[in-house]
Amino acid sequence: MAKKTTSALQENKGVSKTETTNAKSIGSLKKKRKAVLSVDSLVTDLLNKNTSSLSRAITLIESKNPKHLEQATQVIKACLPHANKSIRIGITGVPGVGKSTFIEAFGKHLTAHDKRVAVLAIDPSSTITKGSILGDKTRMEALVKDKNAYIRPSASGNALGGVARKTRESIILCEAAGFDVIIIETVGVGQSETTVHSMVDFFLLLKLAGAGDELQGIKRGIIEMADAIAINKSDGDNLKRAKLAKVEFNRALHLYPEKVSGWLPKVTTCSALQNDGIDTIWELILDYVDLTTKNGFFNKKRAEQNKFWLIQTIESQLKSNFFNLDSIKKELQKQLDLIEQNKTTPFAAADYLLSLK
Amino acid sequence: MAKKTTSALQENKGVSKTETTNAKSIGSLKKKRKAVLSVDSLVTDLLNKNTSSLSRAITLIESKNPKHLEQATQVIKACLPHANKSIRIGITGVPGVGKSTFIEAFGKHLTAHDKRVAVLAIDPSSTITKGSILGDKTRMEALVKDKNAYIRPSASGNALGGVARKTRESIILCEAAGFDVIIIETVGVGQSETTVHSMVDFFLLLKLAGAGDELQGIKRGIIEMADAIAINKSDGDNLKRAKLAKVEFNRALHLYPEKVSGWLPKVTTCSALQNDGIDTIWELILDYVDLTTKNGFFNKKRAEQNKFWLIQTIESQLKSNFFNLDSIKKELQKQLDLIEQNKTTPFAAADYLLSLK
Repeated sequence: MAKKTTSALQENKGVSKTETTNAKSIGSLKKKRKAVLSVDSLVTDLLNKNTSSLSRAITLIESKNPKHLEQATQVIKACLPHANKSIRIGITGVPGVGKSTFIEAFGKHLTAHDKRVAVLAIDPSSTITKGSILGDKTRMEALVKDKNAYIRPSASGNALGGVARKTRESIILCEAAGFDVIIIETVGVGQSETTVHSMVDFFLLLKLAGAGDELQGIKRGIIEMADAIAINKSDGDNLKRAKLAKVEFNRALHLYPEKVSGWLPKVTTCSALQNDGIDTIWELILDYVDLTTKNGFFNKKRAEQNKFWLIQTIESQLKSNFFNLDSIKKELQKQLDLIEQNKTTPFAAADYLLSLK
Repeated sequence: MAKKTTSALQENKGVSKTETTNAKSIGSLKKKRKAVLSVDSLVTDLLNKNTSSLSRAITLIESKNPKHLEQATQVIKACLPHANKSIRIGITGVPGVGKSTFIEAFGKHLTAHDKRVAVLAIDPSSTITKGSILGDKTRMEALVKDKNAYIRPSASGNALGGVARKTRESIILCEAAGFDVIIIETVGVGQSETTVHSMVDFFLLLKLAGAGDELQGIKRGIIEMADAIAINKSDGDNLKRAKLAKVEFNRALHLYPEKVSGWLPKVTTCSALQNDGIDTIWELILDYVDLTTKNGFFNKKRAEQNKFWLIQTIESQLKSNFFNLDSIKKELQKQLDLIEQNKTTPFAAADYLLSLK
């Protein structure tokens, strides 16, 4: 039966490339039955830690085919009771900071300690540079081969909101598939850090010991989000500079108000290449989990994140529904022009546009 | 005629305290005619720099009576072609920094240089501490008596959005009434600074020379918005500390990325009490206006602010319309509970709630 349902799923997957059948048409009942069967077996396999099934389930989430999305919803629903049990870690840093090397070293350290590790990536630009997906995988050669590790390339999408949803749902599936640690990697540009920060328990910022511009080059918002800063490539000639940078970052962190988690953000140095300082970072994360579990912040933060994503999704949908209305598209620029000509105010224009809905 | 229409307006003003008449009822035509007449004469008087008319017009804006709001819309529309000609300055600082004394000294400096100055205040908390309105006026004794100055106490309202709208509309009226400089004062707490920043050309932050905690005590977002920081009460024993603080703030400002205006934020010291350094601040603002007028940023910023308020008003209205629906109020907490119990995801819950609309 497993084989039959797998092929059914593959058949469904093929549909996206041809044509979507109307679910209400004749014959849909049979197809529906097949879909249900395949979802059941997919979930069973996934819960049995089968990573191929996990990949297929994530592909359903990422599909644009309405039938697949319906199946995805069923899979997620079935996985939900088994989710929520991992430590979710966000890792960010500018290109060149050595994120892939770090994640490889960090991931290997975890699997060596009997942890199963999943790596997801958020990269809103990945729709353009699709090549980076392969790049990521080849840059994490050892981790790719590790049977206790799972690497999933960037979820792509036009809007960060869509990417966020796919990633959040992928986290649920990875957790149901028994992964203990979920790493969400993001490139150190734009809005993606805020997005990742809103879906992880611990946020790690990778930095380099720079040429004296440690403070200037930092996006302050990102520093503020970090639960730890790791100064990577702290080896060889870099060692002294890295130690100086550590002092400077420590001083910078003191300027920020205390975190509600009760956690004091830490600064540490490491060399992913030489596998140095990686253990310290993991211990630090465990300390964080320990502290925040005891003081209740860990679960409180997850509940807040859930509420954030609920409200966020509703608000962005309300906005996009409104601004995509033909009537609004037509009138918005006209109203802006009238404001520019001192013929109306932004508020009167808003009232008028809202009345068109 | 002027007298007759003025009394008509006063009659309308009285309506808010009793009962709003249905505009479609018998006799409404007569009333409508009266209202139109009174609006015309109000606008004429306002354009003739009559500050009593300005006050009455702002009262219309602030009224909760639909009839008054209709009149307010007419007044604003008539004033719009005469607006946009002032320099709008936002002034903020924590309580105790000497805002009132500063604005009094600054305002007197401007009127001495043949400028007409209007002072508006944003204070979202003023609904609670209504007494502060009188306080403000008595603390600016000399300015209150100055015929070229106009001081309007805080617009109050439950939501900052409402306060913002009233203040933005009041700016238009003040400009139409021939005021050259509009000062928007805000208390140094909460979200009001961001609101004020979005409606002024120049943002001035007042600070005190503190006890070594110059950097820690600052809300970073506010520093980032400032076009200038003035360290007030720089007199007597305070002088040395103020100069030290100036050095420290200058260093802090260098850590921020360059402003798109092309303007380098300035740090200066002043003593409003001793009328010292006030002229420097005004010259500095004129330098800013000069620079940004030449490089086009001045008008660009105003256009962006208009667009911001248009979009902002629409979005907040869409949200409040949605979340105030009875069906949503009833279901929102249920969905949050289901998320908490791992029975749904924030995204599925959002889809469900949106489907109820």
